[in-house]
This record gives sequence, C-alpha cells and structure tokens, in this order.
Amino acid sequence: MQFFTAGESHGKGLIVLINNFPRGVKVNERLIYALLQRRQKLGGRGARSKKEEIKFDILSGVYQGKTTGAPVSIFIPNTIVSLEEIGSITTPRPGHIDLAGALKYLQTNSREFVERASARETAAKTVAGAFAMMLLDEFNISVLGYTKSIGDIELENVPQDFNTLKQNVWNSTYALPDDSKLSQIEKFIGELKDKGDTAGGTVIVMVKNAPPGLGNHTIPEERLDAQLAKNIFAIQAVKGLEIGNASASTRYPGSKVYGNIYLDPKSPFLFKHTQDWMGGIEGGLSTGEDIILKIYIKPVPTLLHPKRSINLETLKESKAHYESSDYCIVPAISVVCEAVTAFVIASAFLERFGKIDIKEIKENYSRYLADFMKCYKKLST
Amino acid sequence: MQFFTAGESHGKGLIVLINNFPRGVKVNERLIYALLQRRQKLGGRGARSKKEEIKFDILSGVYQGKTTGAPVSIFIPNTIVSLEEIGSITTPRPGHIDLAGALKYLQTNSREFVERASARETAAKTVAGAFAMMLLDEFNISVLGYTKSIGDIELENVPQDFNTLKQNVWNSTYALPDDSKLSQIEKFIGELKDKGDTAGGTVIVMVKNAPPGLGNHTIPEERLDAQLAKNIFAIQAVKGLEIGNASASTRYPGSKVYGNIYLDPKSPFLFKHTQDWMGGIEGGLSTGEDIILKIYIKPVPTLLHPKRSINLETLKESKAHYESSDYCIVPAISVVCEAVTAFVIASAFLERFGKIDIKEIKENYSRYLADFMKCYKKLST
Amino acid sequence: MQFFTAGESHGKGLIVLINNFPRGVKVNERLIYALLQRRQKLGGRGARSKKEEIKFDILSGVYQGKTTGAPVSIFIPNTIVSLEEIGSITTPRPGHIDLAGALKYLQTNSREFVERASARETAAKTVAGAFAMMLLDEFNISVLGYTKSIGDIELENVPQDFNTLKQNVWNSTYALPDDSKLSQIEKFIGELKDKGDTAGGTVIVMVKNAPPGLGNHTIPEERLDAQLAKNIFAIQAVKGLEIGNASASTRYPGSKVYGNIYLDPKSPFLFKHTQDWMGGIEGGLSTGEDIILKIYIKPVPTLLHPKRSINLETLKESKAHYESSDYCIVPAISVVCEAVTAFVIASAFLERFGKIDIKEIKENYSRYLADFMKCYKKLST
Amino acid sequence: MQFFTAGESHGKGLIVLINNFPRGVKVNERLIYALLQRRQKLGGRGARSKKEEIKFDILSGVYQGKTTGAPVSIFIPNTIVSLEEIGSITTPRPGHIDLAGALKYLQTNSREFVERASARETAAKTVAGAFAMMLLDEFNISVLGYTKSIGDIELENVPQDFNTLKQNVWNSTYALPDDSKLSQIEKFIGELKDKGDTAGGTVIVMVKNAPPGLGNHTIPEERLDAQLAKNIFAIQAVKGLEIGNASASTRYPGSKVYGNIYLDPKSPFLFKHTQDWMGGIEGGLSTGEDIILKIYIKPVPTLLHPKRSINLETLKESKAHYESSDYCIVPAISVVCEAVTAFVIASAFLERFGKIDIKEIKENYSRYLADFMKCYKKLST
Repeated sequence: MQFFTAGESHGKGLIVLINNFPRGVKVNERLIYALLQRRQKLGGRGARSKKEEIKFDILSGVYQGKTTGAPVSIFIPNTIVSLEEIGSITTPRPGHIDLAGALKYLQTNSREFVERASARETAAKTVAGAFAMMLLDEFNISVLGYTKSIGDIELENVPQDFNTLKQNVWNSTYALPDDSKLSQIEKFIGELKDKGDTAGGTVIVMVKNAPPGLGNHTIPEERLDAQLAKNIFAIQAVKGLEIGNASASTRYPGSKVYGNIYLDPKSPFLFKHTQDWMGGIEGGLSTGEDIILKIYIKPVPTLLHPKRSINLETLKESKAHYESSDYCIVPAISVVCEAVTAFVIASAFLERFGKIDIKEIKENYSRYLADFMKCYKKLST
Repeated sequence: MQFFTAGESHGKGLIVLINNFPRGVKVNERLIYALLQRRQKLGGRGARSKKEEIKFDILSGVYQGKTTGAPVSIFIPNTIVSLEEIGSITTPRPGHIDLAGALKYLQTNSREFVERASARETAAKTVAGAFAMMLLDEFNISVLGYTKSIGDIELENVPQDFNTLKQNVWNSTYALPDDSKLSQIEKFIGELKDKGDTAGGTVIVMVKNAPPGLGNHTIPEERLDAQLAKNIFAIQAVKGLEIGNASASTRYPGSKVYGNIYLDPKSPFLFKHTQDWMGGIEGGLSTGEDIILKIYIKPVPTLLHPKRSINLETLKESKAHYESSDYCIVPAISVVCEAVTAFVIASAFLERFGKIDIKEIKENYSRYLADFMKCYKKLST
Repeated sequence: MQFFTAGESHGKGLIVLINNFPRGVKVNERLIYALLQRRQKLGGRGARSKKEEIKFDILSGVYQGKTTGAPVSIFIPNTIVSLEEIGSITTPRPGHIDLAGALKYLQTNSREFVERASARETAAKTVAGAFAMMLLDEFNISVLGYTKSIGDIELENVPQDFNTLKQNVWNSTYALPDDSKLSQIEKFIGELKDKGDTAGGTVIVMVKNAPPGLGNHTIPEERLDAQLAKNIFAIQAVKGLEIGNASASTRYPGSKVYGNIYLDPKSPFLFKHTQDWMGGIEGGLSTGEDIILKIYIKPVPTLLHPKRSINLETLKESKAHYESSDYCIVPAISVVCEAVTAFVIASAFLERFGKIDIKEIKENYSRYLADFMKCYKKLST
Repeated sequence: MQFFTAGESHGKGLIVLINNFPRGVKVNERLIYALLQRRQKLGGRGARSKKEEIKFDILSGVYQGKTTGAPVSIFIPNTIVSLEEIGSITTPRPGHIDLAGALKYLQTNSREFVERASARETAAKTVAGAFAMMLLDEFNISVLGYTKSIGDIELENVPQDFNTLKQNVWNSTYALPDDSKLSQIEKFIGELKDKGDTAGGTVIVMVKNAPPGLGNHTIPEERLDAQLAKNIFAIQAVKGLEIGNASASTRYPGSKVYGNIYLDPKSPFLFKHTQDWMGGIEGGLSTGEDIILKIYIKPVPTLLHPKRSINLETLKESKAHYESSDYCIVPAISVVCEAVTAFVIASAFLERFGKIDIKEIKENYSRYLADFMKCYKKLST
C-alpha cells in the first residue's frame, strides 16, 4: 500500500491516490471529515483555516460503500484563494523553502516551490491516514497523536489509560492529553498572536495493539523505524524524531536502559518489558508493545515581523516575505503525524498479513493469533 | 543510485550491490580500507573486532580502475566464526531483535533474525558510503561523522575549522572532535568493560559544501530530510535523529529560532543565514550551508550481566542470552552514519546533476555554478 | 518520471498523476484534447464513445501555463453512465477479466474488476502520453502510432516519408497509413456491426529522432525494450509485441538478419544500419535510428452473440454477459500505444539528460549533440 | 520478491541477490546446478561454454539448509578469461550493444558495455529462477521452457502430456519437445558452424497449475502480462513476445477467437475455456489454465564473417569486431526464459498468498483452495 499526493496550496485543490488498498473495507466518510476538521480547526492556526471549507470527494476505488482494491483517489478542493490571484515571493523567508527552491532552479520568485512545500499538502496525507485507520480499526489497532509541548510548555500529566487519553485529546482544542495547562497554552498562543510571533513544539504518537513483527529486518531500509522515519520527516514542519526514550537512552548505561522481559497473560501478545525505552520497536520490528514516537516541530517560519533577507531580484537587503499564516501548527500537525503513522503501520500490517481482501486478511490475522497462542502454549499450564 | 546488502553476521560474509553508480569514477581502495578499519578498530568494540581481518573484494562494476556504470558489487568476508558453529538464542535479550523476530515467525530460536539485524551489516553500508565519497570528492563535498557524546559525557569543544575537526576525528581512537575529554572517556569505557556494562551516545554528521537544492520538495517522501531519515534509521542502533537544532527550535519562538538571510561573497553559494537551526535543510531541500545531523545511538543490548527474560522453549524465566559483543559502538557507528549520509547526499546530487558519466556530471555541475553566479550576478556590481 | 492512474469505467471519472515531470514545459491543452478525441472518435468504437463528452481538468502541477516540477494531476470525468446504475456481471465473458477476477477474490459478480480492467482507463494513459509528447516536442522527437492491420486486412503501403505518414494517419478515421484499403476496412467494420462480431489487429508505433543510448543496459529490467514491453503490455487489449522485425529475424541466419553499419552525414546521429531488423534498439539501448514496435491487439471480448459460459451464482451454463461495447478498438488503441511509447521514451530521455528544468535539459542535450560531433569529428575531414 | 544481478561477462563472476525470498524453503542445490548446466551445455553454444566450469556459491540467506527470509545472494565465478586480458572493441557489431553503448557514453571502445549486455548475465537470472522453482515446487506449479523453432525449422509435434513433454525437453540436447526433427536441427547447426553463421528461433514457456488471479489488474503496470513482458524483454536476445495465440487472434473475429467457458470437475480450478487463445491470462490476471508464452530470439550478432562497420577511432570502414561466441542460443535461452517466468510467477504468487514463511504461505494457499471449492460448491450437487 502506498500513497501519492498532488496539488498546490492555492491551486484547485489536493489529490491523494492510494494504491493497493485492500478490497472490501467499509468507507467511513465521517472519520475522514473528522480528521480533516481536527487538522484544520485545532488551536494555533491562522485566518485561512477558519474560512476554508472542509470538503472532499472520493473519485475512485469505492463501490457500494466499500473499497474494491482499485486505486482510491480523493480530491480535496481549495475553496478560498486561487493560485493566479496571489503574488510572487522574491524575498525568501528564513526557515521556509523560499531560498533553497529559488537557488535550485535559479529563479527569483519562489511562489511555485512554496505552493508544494506548504503544509496545506498535509490535508492529503490526513485523508490517506483516515483510510489506513479504517483498516486498522478492523484489527483493533489504534493510533493517537497529541501535543506534548508547545514552545517551552510541556504537558507532563499524560493519562495512563488510553481511552481517557484519546477522549481528552479529541476534546481538546489544542490536542492536549489533559487540561492542566490549557489556560497557560491559551495565554501563550494569545501572546504569540499579539506579538505576531510563532511557536513550535513536540508531538507524541502512540500505536496501541499492533502485533509483533511488523517491519522487515532483512532489508534495513524496510525496517519499521526506517519507514516511520521517512514518512514522518516527509511531514512539512518536522525536524526531529525519537523512537521511545531515544535521547535518555544515550545517557544511561545498558543496565539501566533495558528492562526485563516477562510474561503478562493479560497482554495481547504475552511478552512485555518491565521498562520499554525502545518505544515498541526492536531490531526494526514491532515488539507487540506500544509504539511511541516523539516528533519535533519547528516554529512556523512566516513571521509578521519578518527577519532580514535578500531580495532575489535586486540582491538588496530587504524584509522577508510575509503572507497570512499560522501561529503554531503543533496541534494540527499532531493529527498529520497520527495519520502518517497509521498509514505506515497499516502498510506494514498488510505486508505481514496479506493485502488482497479484508475478509482474507482477517482470517490470516486470526490464524496468526491462534498460532501464536499455540506456539507459546506452555504458558497455560 | 541505490544500494542493497546481503549477508549474515556469522555467515560467509557480506555483499553490497550498488546500482546506477556513474561511469568513470576512479576507485579508491585505500579509502574503502580506511573506512572499514575505522569502523572496526575504533574504541569501545569487543573481542571480535580485534580478530576479524579487514578484507574486501570488488567483484564487479570496475574496469581498469574505474567504474563502468554497471552494478558495483563488493564481497566482505567474515574471517572468524561460522554460522554453523555458533548456537541458538532461545532467551531473548531486551533491546535486540530476539523477541520481535521470534514472535513474528513464531519460532523459539532467534539466531537467524539476529544474524541479519546485527551491526555486522554496517560493514556493507560503510563500503557503499566509501563509493559515495569517491563521487562527492570529485565535487569537493565532504561528509564527516564524529562522536558527540558517550553516555553522559558530552564533547562540547568542537573546532570551528572543518579541516582541524576532520583531522582530530580521524586521529582519535573514539572519533572525538577534540582530546579534551579523551581520558575521561577512556576511563568510562574501561569501567564499562570492568562492569560488563554498555553505553550509547550521540553522533554528529556534517556535510560541507553541498550545493543548494538537493532533494525533491515536490514529492514529500523524496525530500532530502525524509531520505536521510529513512537511511539513518536503517542503521542498526539508531533511535533518534535531529536535523539542525531540532530540539531547541521547539522551545523558542520563531523570532528567536530563525536568523536573517544575508549575502556572503566568500561563501560558495553566496546566501547564508546568520543563525541556522534548520541544519542546512529547508522545505526538504539543502540550502547550500552545512548540513548537520544529530543521531541518537542506544547502548549495546547484549549485557554480560544479562537482564531477566523468558526462555521461549520452556516459557520459564531465565537470564537473557549472552554472547561476545561490544561495549560502546558510538565511535564505530559514527563512521557508518557518515557513510550512509554520504550515500544519500551523493544520490541526491546525481538526481540533480545527472548520473551517467562523471565527466558529464562535472560539466553539468560547472555549468550550474556558472549559471548560479550569472543569475545572482548583481552581487558583483 | 512516472505516472499512476485511478478511476473506474463507469465511476466519476479517471485520474492521472504524473510525478517528476520537469519544470518549465509549456502545457499544450489542445494536444491533450486532440489525442483524447482521436482515441474516442476513431472508427470501430461503439455507442458510448459517441456520447461521452471529451473533458479534462488539470488539477495541479501547472502555474501560469507552465509545469512547475510538482506532480501534474488531471481529472477526466465520465459524463454518461454511473457506476451505481449499471448492473452486476455474473456470467463471465471469455477473454475479459470477468472469470479471473471473480476466481481471485472468490466472488460471483465481476463488475468491480471489469471497471478497472476496461479500456476506459486508457484515456488516462493517453493524457499522460500527451504530457510526454509536449516534452519530446522540445527535442524534435516524434512518436506515431497507426493501424497496421484490422482482422486479416493488412496495410502494406506505408509512406516512407514520416510527415506524409503522420498526416495520413491523423486524417484517417481508422488511423490508417494510407487510404488504399479504406473502403475495404469500412466494409469489414460495417459487416462486424451487422453480425455483432468484433475484430483485433496490429498497431505500429514509430519513434523518430530519439538519440542513441536511451535505456539502461546495466540493469536488464531497465533496458529500453523491457520498459517499453512492460508499459505496452499494461495496455488493456495487448497480447503481443515485436521490436523491429522480431518474428522474421528468428527465421533467417545472422548473416541475413544484420545489415552493415555505415556513416550517413545527413542522419542526425551519423551512424546507420543498411538494414535494421532490430527496430532501433540494440543491447537494450536506442541506436539513434527509428524505433519500431509492432503490437498485437486481441478482438474485443464482449460479443453481441455471446459465447457459452457459466453463471457464477448458479453454476449453470448460460450465455456470457453482454453490455454495449466496441467493435474494433485497433485504431483507438493505436493512439494509446503511441501515448504510452511517448511516455517511456520521454522518461528514458530524462534519465539520460536530466530532469529538473526544461531549460537545463535543453542545454544538456545541446551539449551532448555538440560533444557527439566532436567525439566523432574525423568524419568532417 | 525481487532479484538484482551484477557482474561482467569476463570479470570475476556474477552475483545475484534476491530480496524478500520467504523463510523456510529447503534449498535444492542440485536444481541450481542442473539448470546452470542445461543453460551452458545445450546445443548451439560456442567454445567458452565447453570450458567454463559450472560453479556457484550461496553466500547468504540460508541457514541449516533452509532459507531464512534474509537476502539470498549467490556468486557464480567466471573460471576462464579475465576482463583485463581481453581486448577492446572499436568496430561495433550490428545487432549487439557495441554501437549504442559507445554513442551513449561518447566512447570509442565498447568493451565495458558489452561485458554487461552479454548473455553471460543470464547465468545469474537462471539461479534466481532456480530459487523461484523451489518455491513453486511446494505448490505443485511447474514451469517449462523449450525450443519451438530454430531458424526456419519449427517443432510441430508437441506432446500434449506435460510430463512426457518435460522429460523430452530435459533429455534433448536442443531442448526439443520431441525428437522428430533432431537430425534436421543437428545438421542445421553443423552447417551454421561450418559457415560461421548464426541462427535465432522461438521458445515456448508453459506454466502449469498456476492458480487464477495472479497479477494485479488494478495497476496496469503490475498486471501479470506486463510483469512477464518486462522480465522476458530483459533477457538479452529477446525481441518479441506473444501471450497465447496473440498473432492469430489479431486475424480472426472475436466469435472465432474466444471459446466457451465450461466446468471441468477434474481441472484444479474447475473453470476452463474450450479454446484458450489468451494464453491463460485475461484482464492481466492468470485464469487458472496453462499460461503460454511464445518468445522470439534473434540470431547471435557476433559473426565469424563479420558485417561491414565503422571503426570508431578512425571512422574508417572496417569489418565488425569478432570474438569467440555461440552459434545458436535458442536452446540455452529457453532455460533462461523458463527461469525468468518462474521468478515472475513465484513473485505474483507471493503477492497473492503471503510472503513471510513457507509454512504460512502453504496454509494460506490451502485455505484459498478450500474456500474456492466452498464458493463454487453448487457444482457438487
């Protein structure tokens, strides 16, 4: 399963085309809408996100409400500004594609590069992720992204119970795991707007109930972590990724970093670690425990009080370009990180358990679960 | 350009096969040897690395000392232990592939999964990187990896001058940027050995003199950062990656994170940022400034005093498997990170400047440099 | 450069998404329209092709009339029947996907498989080919497909002059190279309609003025002939392909099959064969002479007087399904073969001469042509 | 599953690397040897094939006699001539890569291009095919290639019984389906040798017992016929391919081309056509009947009495290069076509029925067969 996107930030709209999505999956349009809405309406976004209508049109791959195995393609129209109406960008913004794009193509106007590098493309990724979630739902696998920090405000009180956590996140205007710092964050974002400044932050993505063995350890580039990393860094504002407690694990000796492996008969895959700093991935494969990603999001690089820059037509110093933008996209990007992670996990799941037809995949998975218990059956005695 | 590896840790050896390496590049066997030797002999490694002979045999793709454009394949023999001699692994080590591999295939012996997930495979990656460096050398692009921290000892005094830095790193038994903490590290590693413990750390990889525009912003999965991330996380012990100052950039407002763009006539690509926390990559493209990666390496998970685990044949609690291993592979992995980064950069360079023949690629690049100056020529006036 | 298609025969429409199309190519919408119209209106097609409106909407990748290097996506609406209106297919037609699709997914209704396997998808391929031709036009490379035979009527009088040939083909309602057998073919098709029968035939595709060396001999699967074959056999009704005089070349000794190589100063690439039964491709590379493909098209498998078949719901013998269809798609498929060939040649051209920006590709190609003359310069003396 | 090859005709040897070969398949080294031997020793080959020792060394991917799921790599040494000993090729042979290779790279010596384009590479393809056959054997799927014609001598008496046919082919020095024209062919090849001429011919490949539904109709480039075509045309001397009776099917009306579909309870997949000119593939999917390919092989282009050509260093007319070569490789290439077809069929089989472990794939397949009978169960009543 693979997806491709097309479309400009201010063009007619975005396209997402998903190849090799299995046959027979019931399409949940409400889920697509809900994810697009969360992505667009979460706190920190600018004027456009308030005006843009949330629309999508499934153009192919669905028959009588179910997928057919044929390429699924979806069109997401841009309803506000048109590409021909908006102006050129000749004074590159530090942090955005403006300079690198111009220097690559030896141009002085970065408009067309920006159109593709802008985070508007993440709406297409979100829809691809929605389809992946429909698939994961059939196997009781959940993926959740939430805001871990905005600027220097970190959310420390993360509920242990996944359902509580999920509910909190979906109820929060900033995709927060709990409300303890909501007013602090509202104040912070309010001040950003007043100052015309922007902020980044961190996002956590959790995958719950993924079976062990997802990923391909025999070809390093197909390891689950490598696939996650490629797709997470393909998200427009991402600058860093830790799997599990990567940073902390570098500072402590192996004897402190690694926990024991023990049997937990209540756990779906029996085997657990007393401490899992590896984030649910070992040797490039999922272990059957929670997969945890921590993702670093840079601040929005379009500033109301722009940095100094160079006009590419005159080579004179000038203020960097400004156009209406967001203040903090961390909550919105948490939805995109969730979507992209869901897609990678679903793809790895299909690689392992078949990919033709949902009925068949379910049978394959059931048999794996049964064989799993049979293989490690001595537990029951 | 793409590479594939094969081979087991204790099998006959490793294979690397490089497709679409350009024709006409002079093969530098001394560089291959030097990188393999650094990878193997740097401090922190265990018994095997001392005994394993450093050998490689270029099997194809080279004629009269130059590449032909045909697939380059290299065999790196394992000279010590054979796969049939060593035993099975039935009690999984936390942190290694043992558990996830067994659960994927419903086996009780993890030997064959370990053979491929083990860091021995990085010798093949190192050779692929050596070929990439031969190519980058022709364009004056340098890649350097070094140890930034081991355990909680961080190297803060990094020379600003790249040549000094490179010399220090190549002269250091721990790939350190300077000697200020050498004795502290020697003592630390000595204690690890005494205790039978292991350590992780961080690696920095710098790319010097890469032109702007490497990477593909139009397809997010082909962005330079996405390609780097995929390949860096495909390295066996890597758990995290920051591009530039990713972590810090999440904590400060945009106004502090981004520097100004200014003209520096002495810089090869004219345009610079007064502060570059984006690590030389913006919008998925290189900017022409130094590319900086920070990579998190977990501690070696094979412990002399093993953690508790579960014997997969009996499901009884037991000590995790132990076999001779390394104490700290951070210095060695710095060489691998360097190699893999070189390969990604070289591939992106070929995508941009042609890939058939080194003579032609050089002409293409020269013309780009000339056009670059012409395009932004007002500078000279 | 690569394209992907989506969409059903009776769904909302078709999508084509082209990745890595170079920047800066002027979009010729009239060419797209003209090719779509030829594909649809050429003789032999059924009722639908008369009613279906020819429409397309470029959704992305174009700015101010030129390509941007971003994914080009085009929507081609189906304007007549909707998927939900038309019925199921439970009695498979011999020769169509009906039986194989049902047996793959263990279904009794083949509708959804037919929707994707039907030749309606070739409208998307045609648009991809139109973009490729815009690119080839810039380098004076022409691709032309025409009807070589319909049923047992073969067109032997093919004009030697390419421009005459092209004009004839574009003026002909059956894409014929000359009019000598037009009335015979009209009569034949008329009789087919009367009888409710169908016919296949053969198509020739010629590529004029492609430079030598397109394709990749180092990786057999990337040879030009392998790439052409994959894409030609991906066209719905194709069952055979000869490159050059493949069939004849098997029957004669090498001494008769191969011509001499000689210098022709008037030829764009100097070197020619006195007899070229290899069809312009040797060793997987283009030679600089005309590339000639002969393609075998099966008869339309939907028959007004259907064959016997088995009802998949009852397993009783029954007449095969019938729905409105074409009589002979050879002329229409000649347009698709032309389009697909153009796409493969254009992709191979970009692999060889760069792919970023049309201006740069033109400079690369000019320099190759100049170097070519310099390399073989002794000719002029 | 995918394979890559490396290695030169006169270099150290050939490498084949197979990714994603399933775990747990018993390696049959005798089969590898037998196929390599048939490829090398069948009639029509030249001096080298008599002297070259048949050797291969499995370097990776196998543990205790079974595959591990890790990349399988095999080295096939060249035992006779070394690349550095043999000379340059400055006067291109019509029909070989010599001219196209030189013109691509603007060189005057074609040696290095020839080294990769030469049919020696097919030894690597043969080994990849041997591994595929080990897999297909587990599912009772057979692939057989044989000589259908050499020059203008066609073998018409092809035994209907597959086992008889296979025995005949394996017993024949020319891979003939029966002995009726053996002496005629021996005489013909003898005369070729005497005259220093060469011959081509045709090969038939049959696939027996492949289940319905192999291939991917949703993505035309992944159709089974498109995949077969790409890989068959990637074989060095192939110039044409028909699937089923492609050529004949273009000349007859649909009513004559298509047979009826009927139920045959003795057939493994129940459904059959009374006449199958589509060669076992409809709509890009296998139908469950015999898959039949007809492949056109050009004559060997190296002639003892060479054609006229142009010396690339002097641009003077000259005789084309000659070096020791084969007279007729049709029998040898029949083995390669068989191997490559087996690889494509096995890959498509894994895409459909899972690819992790042979035990699991067998269970998946058994369940498909059982479900197949259940789905079409009314037959039994």
